[in-house]
Amino acid sequence: MRQVDARTGIVMMDRDECLAAIAGEHVGRLAVVHGGSPMIYPINFVVDRDEILFRSDPGTKVDAGLRSPVCFEVDHLEPSAQEGWSVVVTGRLEEALPHRQEAWQRILALPLESWAGPKQQLFRIVPDRVTGRRVGPSA
Amino acid sequence: MRQVDARTGIVMMDRDECLAAIAGEHVGRLAVVHGGSPMIYPINFVVDRDEILFRSDPGTKVDAGLRSPVCFEVDHLEPSAQEGWSVVVTGRLEEALPHRQEAWQRILALPLESWAGPKQQLFRIVPDRVTGRRVGPSA
Repeated sequence: MRQVDARTGIVMMDRDECLAAIAGEHVGRLAVVHGGSPMIYPINFVVDRDEILFRSDPGTKVDAGLRSPVCFEVDHLEPSAQEGWSVVVTGRLEEALPHRQEAWQRILALPLESWAGPKQQLFRIVPDRVTGRRVGPSA
Repeated sequence: MRQVDARTGIVMMDRDECLAAIAGEHVGRLAVVHGGSPMIYPINFVVDRDEILFRSDPGTKVDAGLRSPVCFEVDHLEPSAQEGWSVVVTGRLEEALPHRQEAWQRILALPLESWAGPKQQLFRIVPDRVTGRRVGPSA
């Protein structure tokens, strides 16, 4: 059953709908906490089963992300219609390492492209909670 | 002089360029820290001089944002060309209140629309640091 907020018109998306929606996008935003402050970093990503994979060079983004919970957001907006959806994932970050050859080959074959050149390391966001909302006339 | 990262092709945007770029957009993402975890919330916003204004109902987003630093991100992406820009603002959140009648009338006249229905309160993000990056072939 669809959950709709009568006042705002916001429609809640379930977990499967959220993961299917973000699988069609290429850029999301990773938030980490660094020194008590939130920081947002746009990242290229790919959905792998129910996890999110991305590449990064070493730095504050992944150092801070490995030390605290992370939040990941993807949206798709249609400004002319004032509508769109947004999915928010909360979870933890870990480095993706080649523990099992078969899984690693599958991961390396995923269509994960970086708009900003090659990156040294591969990371995964392991979701704890996945929520999504649709807003606007067609929600 | 433009700052360009030779390896990644990323071009740094200066503060004026960042504020001009986000002024043309309607949705950004606010990150706050709640219980040690980052949380991202999409918001409709408008740029008012060098501050960012948005409406919100009471809740975790603004409660947490008033207690710690905040981060605000806006981007514009062209997936087909694998290019785009992203601006990240770090600063503090405060409620916008009608201290001075003249300023309040100006603020209320700003083109701040909410895609998700009316909101009770008006807030401003007072920037501490504004950074922006362009990425992709035309950067």
